[in-house]
Amino acid sequence: METNRVEAFSDGVFAIAITLLILTVDIGDIRGSLGDAVLRIWPSYLAYAVSFLTIGIMWVNHHTIMRHIERADRTFLFLNLGLLMCVAFVPFPTRLVAEFIRSSGDRATAALTYGITMTITAVFFNALWNYAAWRRRLLRTDADRREVSGITRSYMPGAPIYGTATLIALASPIASVALFAAIALFFALSSTLFGRDETA
Amino acid sequence: METNRVEAFSDGVFAIAITLLILTVDIGDIRGSLGDAVLRIWPSYLAYAVSFLTIGIMWVNHHTIMRHIERADRTFLFLNLGLLMCVAFVPFPTRLVAEFIRSSGDRATAALTYGITMTITAVFFNALWNYAAWRRRLLRTDADRREVSGITRSYMPGAPIYGTATLIALASPIASVALFAAIALFFALSSTLFGRDETA
Amino acid sequence: METNRVEAFSDGVFAIAITLLILTVDIGDIRGSLGDAVLRIWPSYLAYAVSFLTIGIMWVNHHTIMRHIERADRTFLFLNLGLLMCVAFVPFPTRLVAEFIRSSGDRATAALTYGITMTITAVFFNALWNYAAWRRRLLRTDADRREVSGITRSYMPGAPIYGTATLIALASPIASVALFAAIALFFALSSTLFGRDETA
Amino acid sequence: METNRVEAFSDGVFAIAITLLILTVDIGDIRGSLGDAVLRIWPSYLAYAVSFLTIGIMWVNHHTIMRHIERADRTFLFLNLGLLMCVAFVPFPTRLVAEFIRSSGDRATAALTYGITMTITAVFFNALWNYAAWRRRLLRTDADRREVSGITRSYMPGAPIYGTATLIALASPIASVALFAAIALFFALSSTLFGRDETA
Repeated sequence: METNRVEAFSDGVFAIAITLLILTVDIGDIRGSLGDAVLRIWPSYLAYAVSFLTIGIMWVNHHTIMRHIERADRTFLFLNLGLLMCVAFVPFPTRLVAEFIRSSGDRATAALTYGITMTITAVFFNALWNYAAWRRRLLRTDADRREVSGITRSYMPGAPIYGTATLIALASPIASVALFAAIALFFALSSTLFGRDETA
Repeated sequence: METNRVEAFSDGVFAIAITLLILTVDIGDIRGSLGDAVLRIWPSYLAYAVSFLTIGIMWVNHHTIMRHIERADRTFLFLNLGLLMCVAFVPFPTRLVAEFIRSSGDRATAALTYGITMTITAVFFNALWNYAAWRRRLLRTDADRREVSGITRSYMPGAPIYGTATLIALASPIASVALFAAIALFFALSSTLFGRDETA
Repeated sequence: METNRVEAFSDGVFAIAITLLILTVDIGDIRGSLGDAVLRIWPSYLAYAVSFLTIGIMWVNHHTIMRHIERADRTFLFLNLGLLMCVAFVPFPTRLVAEFIRSSGDRATAALTYGITMTITAVFFNALWNYAAWRRRLLRTDADRREVSGITRSYMPGAPIYGTATLIALASPIASVALFAAIALFFALSSTLFGRDETA
Repeated sequence: METNRVEAFSDGVFAIAITLLILTVDIGDIRGSLGDAVLRIWPSYLAYAVSFLTIGIMWVNHHTIMRHIERADRTFLFLNLGLLMCVAFVPFPTRLVAEFIRSSGDRATAALTYGITMTITAVFFNALWNYAAWRRRLLRTDADRREVSGITRSYMPGAPIYGTATLIALASPIASVALFAAIALFFALSSTLFGRDETA
């Protein structure tokens, strides 16, 4: 299968999942004034922004992978489908975090669900790239050797970092969620500040 | 009509339907702890994964069809529209299965609805391909004769297999649903393990 | 603006609106068995199918327009936006018809809302085409004169037919809705049976 | 990253956000007749139309930007992601305005939320364009100097105008919302009446 169709389909799922995040932001049945309701759901806005940024970063990374790929075999297709299954799942734990982060009894569950989703996503990301890059199986013949190993190195820490942030939820759910926000922000800002020329 | 526009539109519907599946996963009004609620809806996760995989496989097959087509006439367009109508319908029975598979009185209905949807989808798939391939009506002139009859043979069992899995719901709804999961998994894994070079 | 971007954006809205129709099909809070609930909402399935077919036909027609257009000016862009606004609106009256067609007191309102939506859509369709075709304003220089006037003639009856079907809702809502179903089916079947070569 | 992928992804988000606006139009639980309910929610139709037009205009402007861009660096990508985050957010305040504009106690909150969303969106628009156009950083080498400064001038008033309309909500929420409607309509009509050749 030509990679451009896989890329277009994946782009579609990324774009839809990222836009469906807005369903996370919901005032529910309001008691009292609308002003109170709109302020009360501030975790929704944060959760929306963090997940939006995170899916956005994943989309950028997905393109980095696709740019180095020459062809897609069926294993690649199904690993990619697994990845998309995780990405499309993100609105669910995002909503849990938005709704329950202020409930002392339930915030650990919400943060864990969020973290587990992100960690599995990161694992699929690594699997997709490593499957394609292993002995240059699916890489373009002109893919730069140094760039390829640079990608491999830069993707490696994703799953362990997300896994650690997830485990932190057992001790402090709020620290865990804050860490996910910080990771997304760090990536966005650091690449803005230092990585300007990478994608030139 | 150029086939690439039909393909892009179909890709859009596949991508949206597959991403809307997440609306299937919903904790509803929780009683007790969030932890209980998140665990209690485990059939939702399974149903989400099975339908995601199934639509994903259909998308791969749809591309196989489109790759061999040179042009689309109106009959083809409307058969394709019928197929998309089924694909976009999948979130509904998926939700039924997710919600009612544990209700002994209602799980047969849920499984039957799921099975009937899948069977009709398979029928449209066969109709679409057979209409196009009949006397090479819409095929590309360079479409390989052996490959074409190989596709015809491999698509043939789809509707009967799905129909059988549907009928099994009358005796055992859970066996029926498990069979749909097994079919999806088998297809994904078998083509991963044995079919690696098919789409090279 | 290049027409291919307008077409891609429009295709996106068509694909999303057509897929969102599934939100029309909803068993709501069930009383009694799931079997009863699934059968009870049969108008939802019909409404889903009719609106799916209708939007599908509109998408085919939209392509016919775009195929003859060389460039898009701002008036064209905003007429097109108006058309898309109507298409994206269709899930709302579809849901009304699905829910209220069996309520003797409310079915007239549901059918009227559906009919008015469809009629306004048809008006925008005519406006879009006539604006583009008027003195060949935006047409491709190689657009066939006979084909162009054929399209003008074939689009002309759309709004009056839909308008008539809408007015019939005042006398008999069910006849009105049946007429919309018949129009969609007639178009799909007639072009399937007689028009096979048109889009070759 | 090639700009055409950024453009396709952005188009996807615009198309989905604009189509999801229909979820704003909802009769809720009806008391009394359906006819009353359908008429009672007239603010929903207006809010739907205004937001649809506004997102549509943003989409047109986004293309104007992309047409002058040669390449996208990471800062551009994340500014664009910020813009999309705002666009995808629009359905939420649209729903608030639709539901609460007739509630004297809550309409100020609804109008403010709407206005703030629009103002932040306009700020991101300016940031995106100015980042790209600053010393022609990302512009195509053949981008016309006069046209570029024309775009800069025409985008400049966006944020202040939206900001003013937002502040007006503190005095009169209805005037504020009417102003947003007027801005959208003015833009659509003025460019239709006077700007016909701009995009030729």
